[in-house]
Amino acid sequence: MTEIIQSTRPTPPGVSEAELDRALEAFAAAIGTEKVATDPEALQDFQDPYQVPGTATNVPSGVVSPTSVEDVQAIVRLANEHRIPLWPIGRGKNNGYGGAAPQVRGSVMVSFRNMNKVLEINEELGYAMVEPGVSWYDLHDAIEAGGHDLVASIVDVGWGGVVSNTLEHGLTYMPYSIDQAAHCGFEVVLPDGDLLRTGSGAMDNNPTWPLYKRGLGPTSTEMFMQSNFGIVTKMGYWLMPKPEVYMPLWLRLWDAANLPQVIDALRELMLAGTIDMRPQLSNTLIMASMLSSRAQWYDGPGPIPEDVIDTIAKEMDLGRWMMRFALYGDEAVVDHNFAKLKARFMRIPGVDIKGEKYGADQWETLPNPHEQVMIGVPNNDLYKMASWSGGEEGGHVDFSPVVPLTAKHAAEAQQLMVEMCAEAGLDYLGGMLPINARATTFINVIPFDTKDPEQVDKAYSAAKRMVARAGKMGYGEYRAHLSFMDLAAHQFGFNDHAQGRFNETIKDTLDPNGIIAPGKSGIWGTRMRQEGFPVIDERFPLD
Amino acid sequence: MTEIIQSTRPTPPGVSEAELDRALEAFAAAIGTEKVATDPEALQDFQDPYQVPGTATNVPSGVVSPTSVEDVQAIVRLANEHRIPLWPIGRGKNNGYGGAAPQVRGSVMVSFRNMNKVLEINEELGYAMVEPGVSWYDLHDAIEAGGHDLVASIVDVGWGGVVSNTLEHGLTYMPYSIDQAAHCGFEVVLPDGDLLRTGSGAMDNNPTWPLYKRGLGPTSTEMFMQSNFGIVTKMGYWLMPKPEVYMPLWLRLWDAANLPQVIDALRELMLAGTIDMRPQLSNTLIMASMLSSRAQWYDGPGPIPEDVIDTIAKEMDLGRWMMRFALYGDEAVVDHNFAKLKARFMRIPGVDIKGEKYGADQWETLPNPHEQVMIGVPNNDLYKMASWSGGEEGGHVDFSPVVPLTAKHAAEAQQLMVEMCAEAGLDYLGGMLPINARATTFINVIPFDTKDPEQVDKAYSAAKRMVARAGKMGYGEYRAHLSFMDLAAHQFGFNDHAQGRFNETIKDTLDPNGIIAPGKSGIWGTRMRQEGFPVIDERFPLD
Repeated sequence: MTEIIQSTRPTPPGVSEAELDRALEAFAAAIGTEKVATDPEALQDFQDPYQVPGTATNVPSGVVSPTSVEDVQAIVRLANEHRIPLWPIGRGKNNGYGGAAPQVRGSVMVSFRNMNKVLEINEELGYAMVEPGVSWYDLHDAIEAGGHDLVASIVDVGWGGVVSNTLEHGLTYMPYSIDQAAHCGFEVVLPDGDLLRTGSGAMDNNPTWPLYKRGLGPTSTEMFMQSNFGIVTKMGYWLMPKPEVYMPLWLRLWDAANLPQVIDALRELMLAGTIDMRPQLSNTLIMASMLSSRAQWYDGPGPIPEDVIDTIAKEMDLGRWMMRFALYGDEAVVDHNFAKLKARFMRIPGVDIKGEKYGADQWETLPNPHEQVMIGVPNNDLYKMASWSGGEEGGHVDFSPVVPLTAKHAAEAQQLMVEMCAEAGLDYLGGMLPINARATTFINVIPFDTKDPEQVDKAYSAAKRMVARAGKMGYGEYRAHLSFMDLAAHQFGFNDHAQGRFNETIKDTLDPNGIIAPGKSGIWGTRMRQEGFPVIDERFPLD
Repeated sequence: MTEIIQSTRPTPPGVSEAELDRALEAFAAAIGTEKVATDPEALQDFQDPYQVPGTATNVPSGVVSPTSVEDVQAIVRLANEHRIPLWPIGRGKNNGYGGAAPQVRGSVMVSFRNMNKVLEINEELGYAMVEPGVSWYDLHDAIEAGGHDLVASIVDVGWGGVVSNTLEHGLTYMPYSIDQAAHCGFEVVLPDGDLLRTGSGAMDNNPTWPLYKRGLGPTSTEMFMQSNFGIVTKMGYWLMPKPEVYMPLWLRLWDAANLPQVIDALRELMLAGTIDMRPQLSNTLIMASMLSSRAQWYDGPGPIPEDVIDTIAKEMDLGRWMMRFALYGDEAVVDHNFAKLKARFMRIPGVDIKGEKYGADQWETLPNPHEQVMIGVPNNDLYKMASWSGGEEGGHVDFSPVVPLTAKHAAEAQQLMVEMCAEAGLDYLGGMLPINARATTFINVIPFDTKDPEQVDKAYSAAKRMVARAGKMGYGEYRAHLSFMDLAAHQFGFNDHAQGRFNETIKDTLDPNGIIAPGKSGIWGTRMRQEGFPVIDERFPLD
């Protein structure tokens, strides 16, 4: 009996069960027994919810839940001593990108759910200082509770974390979302337990820490994003003064062939500043997936046929592509910009546009969850998308390269996705979320039923093939799923993978024991490479 | 005779003349004799022009002028072999911050004057890709020559370099200047000669290199700014589509006591997006210094008295503070924003505002050089400021902390500057250039006559005292003069100088021989510390 338990208990590479137990005891002694857990219920949240049930191998051995920066420092120091890899997680989601699971089996999760204080909201200067466990709900509620004349740019599904989403280059939608640049100033626990503050925070009591992104000399903030060079424990986040008017807008395109024209018009309007936020373009199936389930429309084999998509587009009144976007500002300026963008888009055959203006007293109670999101009111309604295929057991894997915001590149990226989805017999759920006026993420949500192992494998295989094919076309992922993180990182191959070699050098310097999130963004470090990582799916070799 | 020449010839630390000669020969053999110079005329440009003539100690031993990235790589590899510190310089200016001189005596300058190609201008996506020797004139001329419907955000004095100014966190003025974020993507020669491309450039042929600031994983771009971790050899720079209307604006404040009210109004208008560019606030003496010389107004001892400043303010029609700023965009929006900002500022007693709208056909020939600068037309007219005290031999040292853009902080920073200038018997030339809606650089231009060694010493001493005093108040320099770079860096003391220790760790890893710009931003590395650096002015100890 004992032997069976031993063989199934996840332990970190090169660490015995006894050594792991000693480490867990040391964590408990340092930060408190109640902050360390190893029971199955506590660990259940830290698995990818979109894997075939029971097949996950990258599962944690324990979870520590610090309540202070000092706790985090103690954890990191002990992890070095005991050679225990740590996998920090904010609120515990990351769905579609591998979930809250660690990359290395047996890692100890560092969960920030109990470090969820909004430390400060400054109305005069428009910022919040937050801990890494603050959710979008927490931030919104703190702004409301303080009666501040401010709004936060948020994500589609409000349960996630402000810091963890930011660190992942996550996308939000209001004007401050452009270039994912709303954060200002990090506090970071380094892999040796030392404490760094980036930008102006490197000076004691410098009031510009959350105001000016730099200090004197090189700025390390961006080195801690999508990274395993440290653990972020505080972050400044800019909040926008409430605009006079908020006008959510909906553009429908009934002829999918004209999508490239919409892209060019959008770039022009964004470059001119007429549209100054992050639109979200979705094809019929993405929109439908938030409002219905696949089985309502089609239950045949292979991808949903074109004529069924046309039916969905018409019956649900969605169009073949839909763009959700918004204007913010003084009413006179909003009116001018609406007239201008309407005139520009309506030159494209098959387009219609609608929208309505709202004052601040109406925002919290808007009936449409999309329209709530674009003015910073969090909800979880849009999570329904995940159950398109498979209902409660539905899942998705997201392939999301960045391409220039031009008709030509959008068409090329879309062709790749359509072809590969068709080859794999999967629906094409495509969307675009511009980064700025010049570049856009082109997201392919690949849905599957986790009860159908063959379909799951097809979905992951299709995503991996797309990563490699896109890399050859010069398109890189803005964010990678755990199961193809190494493959996605490997595509960045300029000068014999100069960036990867640079990152590994920094990793070995800052984290010689490979403690912090080994494998994150394909960065392993020498010790974990010696332990045999990365483990590559032999059907999809790196080269 | 020979001995005298030997004793005065600058050689790098720990390097004999013979070893230096072997290194210079190796440089010449690798990149061509014509690209290596050691004659006094060639080296004359690489000294601080604002020191007492003949007193400079931080002078170079030679200059190499690469014409290709491969040249730069060869230089760096040989510098490692021969232990020769290199000091890269774009166009050779940096006036007011120590000039084009190296921090370490005997360094070899890497001058980019012959790497001055605008490699690409993309009108559809609004960017240029430039080499490190491209001047603001070069960029402007390339846009004009290509007939592009684009404008570049530029600096006050057009002779500087686009890359070198950007790397120094330099300030420009148009909408893209906000947060100094107009650059996108670097190519960097690392200290070992390896070649890195940052952000999306880490992937071969990725068209989003100049479009999306990141790639997958941590982004190192900002680590190469104000830094000595590598030499930037290419940079993407965003260009703005020409707006329908450009409206330069001038606000005068006749009662200096109301400056804090102007600051609060400005922050509100910038947070609301009504003003979306970098204004420049200048007190009477800064404005006067660009248009006249001190001797015209006053020749008594000590700082210019208040009543004389009042006279200047009235006679030159400047006001006690003047703000130059501008609106850009569709005419209807510009009109709305002008009416709004005018109404807001005119609530402050003693304010007047004027401005006029111009279409694109008028920009190149605007008579006022300030108004040219704010629409991207370079000129050198505003350089006259340097001759306020001392005429042709005039100089200045700039003290420039970043403070929150609030009435309270602006008043506190100004009080520090006024008091310390008065103590030192120097004129107070103050100005503010907001970084964004939340923070501003508060610049104190300290003028002196380089023919008067006592005045020069007073000016530098005042600046150094201000750096230390400002540090205690929590204000850090946005850019530091060579002569107090160590002092300014030392103010960033959070957690026992965690940022400095982090930087030194990275420096030792990437550049163990201390080859690239030793001392830059106070980062020396172990080898140069073993050679006795930094050398601290004992009158101004670090602690």
